[in-house]
Amino acid sequence: MQSRQSVVEVVRGVVVESRHRVHVAVVDASGALRASSGDPELVTFVRSAAKPFQAIPLVEDGAEVRFGLSAQELALCCGSHAGEPMHVRTAESILRKAGLDADALACGPHPPFHGATRRELAERGLEPGRLHNNCSGKHAGMMTLARAHGWDPRGYERLGHPVQERILGELTRWVDLPAEAIALGADGCGVVCFAMPLCNLALGYARLAAAARQGEGAGSQVVAAMTAFPEMVAGRGRICTDLMRQTEGRIFAKVGAEGVYTLGIPGAELGIALKVEDGASRAVAPAVLGVLRKLDLISEDDFGALLAYGIPELTNSRGEVTGQLRAQIDLGVGDA
Amino acid sequence: MQSRQSVVEVVRGVVVESRHRVHVAVVDASGALRASSGDPELVTFVRSAAKPFQAIPLVEDGAEVRFGLSAQELALCCGSHAGEPMHVRTAESILRKAGLDADALACGPHPPFHGATRRELAERGLEPGRLHNNCSGKHAGMMTLARAHGWDPRGYERLGHPVQERILGELTRWVDLPAEAIALGADGCGVVCFAMPLCNLALGYARLAAAARQGEGAGSQVVAAMTAFPEMVAGRGRICTDLMRQTEGRIFAKVGAEGVYTLGIPGAELGIALKVEDGASRAVAPAVLGVLRKLDLISEDDFGALLAYGIPELTNSRGEVTGQLRAQIDLGVGDA
Repeated sequence: MQSRQSVVEVVRGVVVESRHRVHVAVVDASGALRASSGDPELVTFVRSAAKPFQAIPLVEDGAEVRFGLSAQELALCCGSHAGEPMHVRTAESILRKAGLDADALACGPHPPFHGATRRELAERGLEPGRLHNNCSGKHAGMMTLARAHGWDPRGYERLGHPVQERILGELTRWVDLPAEAIALGADGCGVVCFAMPLCNLALGYARLAAAARQGEGAGSQVVAAMTAFPEMVAGRGRICTDLMRQTEGRIFAKVGAEGVYTLGIPGAELGIALKVEDGASRAVAPAVLGVLRKLDLISEDDFGALLAYGIPELTNSRGEVTGQLRAQIDLGVGDA
Repeated sequence: MQSRQSVVEVVRGVVVESRHRVHVAVVDASGALRASSGDPELVTFVRSAAKPFQAIPLVEDGAEVRFGLSAQELALCCGSHAGEPMHVRTAESILRKAGLDADALACGPHPPFHGATRRELAERGLEPGRLHNNCSGKHAGMMTLARAHGWDPRGYERLGHPVQERILGELTRWVDLPAEAIALGADGCGVVCFAMPLCNLALGYARLAAAARQGEGAGSQVVAAMTAFPEMVAGRGRICTDLMRQTEGRIFAKVGAEGVYTLGIPGAELGIALKVEDGASRAVAPAVLGVLRKLDLISEDDFGALLAYGIPELTNSRGEVTGQLRAQIDLGVGDA
């Protein structure tokens, strides 16, 4: 298979002003590389694309049943939420069910991604709290996992804590890498994060897709929660939520920071992982929709409904349209 | 000369998480390409790096003398300012001297770049105005130029207005390109903006550097204003201001949007233009300082004083250092 190059172009007038290079790996549940662009073995941190795997032990180890977590709450554990009131309430509910306190969350505060919520906090003179952190669902889930096992939740975010050992072990099985092949770092929220080749991340999502197709096991339950409550995985006006809502369970999707995006297609038992080389978030949605379209995994109607993500317009301080983002996706298709 | 590649790496832990590719052209006042990296002929919009050329007609055509503009005010006309109170006052002063009204500014409002000013506006429940737009000095200068010539200022921002014809003519001489070779677009502030190869932009800055060294003409006066009042060219905590202040007139510098940066070195009659391929602003300062260091155009003491720009640390929502940005600059040096 030849190596192809894909870019998202930033166009102003008739000139390509900036270019975002994109690396893509498309893998099936057997581990075969079915299509790629750029370097499908590029090693990068997967950031929040790890969240579904980080949530699986909650189901597998019985925490979800023991504390009566709802599917919405499970979806929030997989989410990078926008800090809307519904997200804060859902994170609080998880903590309450497990008898935990928001003060014990290790994530730091940051302003909510959701503009109206952010402005409302500012106008009321309120500072954002830890529950507004986009990862607060994941953190609540990790503390809940500790509680279910009878582990002291303190330090749950750090390498060496049994919560992190349990999660790393889970992850290694899905992505088919030994723990020592996964480089570690500190994520934006303070939790351990994982670096691996894109193709291994794609394999993990392909196996999740296969699990979802078969409808069995904890992986299937996590995917079902994400697609049933896509608003918990991201929020209003965000690609993960709107893509899952538009495709009605045919695709599940998760963004990671620094230009990472992952998709699973249960019907085809495929996983897709992509990385915008420079980490730019603006290029992610055009790249995702470009790849789905190139692979015929999204209908023209669905693409049209998501056009503001696929080919977003750029406007200036006067509100004039000055250009657009457009993906040029070239996927080498075939066996590796 | 061999083509070299330069990048700014985004490092998390021990892994390079993202990469920004950088194109560089280093040109002398005769037009010779003295060093380069990536594609020195890359065509891109020069954005606000055009501002010194846009300000030259104010001096050349006598507007500055007629309306008694100060050197601070001339520097603001070349600036992408941070919207601090001193910037707003200086823009107002230009307009007052020329008998103009801020309501006639064509630039739209955007929140000030300067964090404390932005927060103060929000806390007082005030919306940012047109004077806060980082380009308000340039716009005030353009209207002042119209006034000096007796042209109706209305529509001064648009192609075809005599102000824009005059500026395009000025620019073509400095960058040694015919007007028809310069592609046009609408800038973030609504004004005509210009696309050209990086090496032509660098030539323009090399000629400005030579003019500054000789101390003659409108170009020299514009550079003198920028280096005497660097706080008017950007603002507190910004690379243009701190680099010019630290190097005390040995370097003049101007940022452009979408990853553009330009420098002039009067002592060496050199111009440097660089473009972060993907337009990321975070990569600009490390690239600039990396290029200056590679070319021995900045002392180790000056580099050390500017270390927070050269090798910035990355922190997370908990305030922990998670990584850094570091430039890997490889310049092919020699005649083209």
